[in-house]
Amino acid sequence: MRTPLCDEFGIDYPIFAFTPSEHVAAAVSRAGGLGVLGCVRFNDPDELEKTLTWLDDNTDGKPYGVDVVMPMKIPTEGTSTDLASYIPEEHRKFVDETLLKLGVPPLPEGEGREGVLGWLHSVARSHVDIALAHRPVLIANALGSPPVDVIEKAHEHGVKVAALAGAAKHALSHVANGVDIIVAQGYEAGGHTGEIASMVLTPDIVDAVGPGVPVLGAGGIGSGRQVAASLALGAAGVWTGSIWLGTEEYRNLASNKGWETAFLRATSSDTVRTRIYTGKPARLLKTKWTEAWAEEGAPTPLPMPLQNLLVADAHNRINASGDPDVISMPVGQIVGRMNEVRPVADVMASLVAEFEEAVAHLNKVNG
Amino acid sequence: MRTPLCDEFGIDYPIFAFTPSEHVAAAVSRAGGLGVLGCVRFNDPDELEKTLTWLDDNTDGKPYGVDVVMPMKIPTEGTSTDLASYIPEEHRKFVDETLLKLGVPPLPEGEGREGVLGWLHSVARSHVDIALAHRPVLIANALGSPPVDVIEKAHEHGVKVAALAGAAKHALSHVANGVDIIVAQGYEAGGHTGEIASMVLTPDIVDAVGPGVPVLGAGGIGSGRQVAASLALGAAGVWTGSIWLGTEEYRNLASNKGWETAFLRATSSDTVRTRIYTGKPARLLKTKWTEAWAEEGAPTPLPMPLQNLLVADAHNRINASGDPDVISMPVGQIVGRMNEVRPVADVMASLVAEFEEAVAHLNKVNG
Repeated sequence: MRTPLCDEFGIDYPIFAFTPSEHVAAAVSRAGGLGVLGCVRFNDPDELEKTLTWLDDNTDGKPYGVDVVMPMKIPTEGTSTDLASYIPEEHRKFVDETLLKLGVPPLPEGEGREGVLGWLHSVARSHVDIALAHRPVLIANALGSPPVDVIEKAHEHGVKVAALAGAAKHALSHVANGVDIIVAQGYEAGGHTGEIASMVLTPDIVDAVGPGVPVLGAGGIGSGRQVAASLALGAAGVWTGSIWLGTEEYRNLASNKGWETAFLRATSSDTVRTRIYTGKPARLLKTKWTEAWAEEGAPTPLPMPLQNLLVADAHNRINASGDPDVISMPVGQIVGRMNEVRPVADVMASLVAEFEEAVAHLNKVNG
Repeated sequence: MRTPLCDEFGIDYPIFAFTPSEHVAAAVSRAGGLGVLGCVRFNDPDELEKTLTWLDDNTDGKPYGVDVVMPMKIPTEGTSTDLASYIPEEHRKFVDETLLKLGVPPLPEGEGREGVLGWLHSVARSHVDIALAHRPVLIANALGSPPVDVIEKAHEHGVKVAALAGAAKHALSHVANGVDIIVAQGYEAGGHTGEIASMVLTPDIVDAVGPGVPVLGAGGIGSGRQVAASLALGAAGVWTGSIWLGTEEYRNLASNKGWETAFLRATSSDTVRTRIYTGKPARLLKTKWTEAWAEEGAPTPLPMPLQNLLVADAHNRINASGDPDVISMPVGQIVGRMNEVRPVADVMASLVAEFEEAVAHLNKVNG
């Protein structure tokens, strides 16, 4: 399974793996794909610095990427304390009452931390600066095109820039800004998504940007059949995320208590696209927490970044409680097929073998 | 492009084409696919009888299928007049006021007809009886499994039964009822759809029903790349619909005034999944009509079959007016790629040629 992206990035397979875990990212890169570390969870620049140093040391010299969350338009922002003053009292009350109703205990005395500040533009910018002092080959932005000066800075360091797009017109705008690679993020994907499914979106974007811009198919990719489907649609590679949550390496990320149980039992119907996680539509696992927000009388989610500040403490409490019925976690519809926990290298080997089987099958159909 | 379905049905390509137009159905069958005539528009049994006789005479002896709309559970129903008494006055008022606001004129004096009765169980049953006196090779049901006695009757006539499914558990239930072929209807499809996109749904259903039950991939299929993607996902063939609305043969169906303009300019973002057409979630072209129902204060759509009775007259008026800004029409996200009107045979030839190109491309990737 080789496309021009393999030579461009020095990887064996055009399989890009977004993950919040450096252990997963390193394992993917070692297995021949491109591990892409999600930086949004790093409030503390020193922590990201240390983690990237660890990645440098644990990827056997193989390439890796980083993923930030950065709006194109630079917002006016204050500290998280300033921002918190914009959150209406009724929203806070709803969160408190819902946690009580769902039996989520307060954090143990002395525990707790600030919300996830990675959603703030200034913090995402610091992530880029820290990353560029290491050796990423790719900076991806989950919110579309980063500001042009960020793209230029990445290019000065010889680093390619990828941006997520949920419609062809957004992809064209990213390319106009200087973005090198488009991630065609289909409706079925976990996290921030648009409304167009991969089957339609991937060829839409491939044709819109033309052969000079590689497109990664994203959303619904958890097996080699889906990799083959995405490449048949014209993608130069695939962008995966959810499937790596079901790996042994992911267990190293402390905050996954309860997630495994929830993921392993979920079907493809057990996700929901909602604004409650960040303020922008994102696909999450369907739990009592997401259902509470869908009930009549629940408040309308706040815009980004206020919504995440509102629910940050709730997320900490939910994660600490580890109750699989309540967890709040982005995941794609492919969660229905995450039925066992395997090592990253095994998942990668399956993707490649199943891809080859799918191509052999198509050849048989083609006569 | 041959799969076992080709031998089973005596067709050249495993491309099934749902269409309300007998002209399109006949042309698809003549071009080597399987044209499947949608029966829901036939209120008058004699009209369906005549149309099927026309199909018998215009398919060069090639096979064709029919599609009905029949809930598995037989509802208690009265005449359309009885049913009309269940429609709340505020719903009628909303429809009247919306048509006025959108500038849709009343029907000319003497014109107008009853609502589309094909949504009624008794009428759908008569469609099956009439069809079985002709030579269809397939009866498909848009609402999942038909009642078991209908399946048995079809089998007695040597006719296969296909049923749409939006989740693996529904597909398993259809198979248990005796259904022969599952149409995996993805989120991106036009008409009645579930929430799981094709990229995830097709392999879900293929694996759930096992190798003994052929699965047709449906939703988002408008090019040979998408046919290749669907077959890579494990489908034994594809079920298409929207793309045939953009054909010269479709122009024979009188009620398409204004549709062509609307389809040709639409992008993949210009559809919406809503209950306003039939009472069950169905994907329609996004127009001022669908937007009016999404506004704050608009009534909640009624359950099937009341919603269709409520809007039937409005649909007649909208169709007669031919205003492309207002039309009410089921179509999938693939509408964004319907940019020119072509003969059916050309569309079929493109699907086949592009499929072959996609397979050649995958072989190159596979080395």
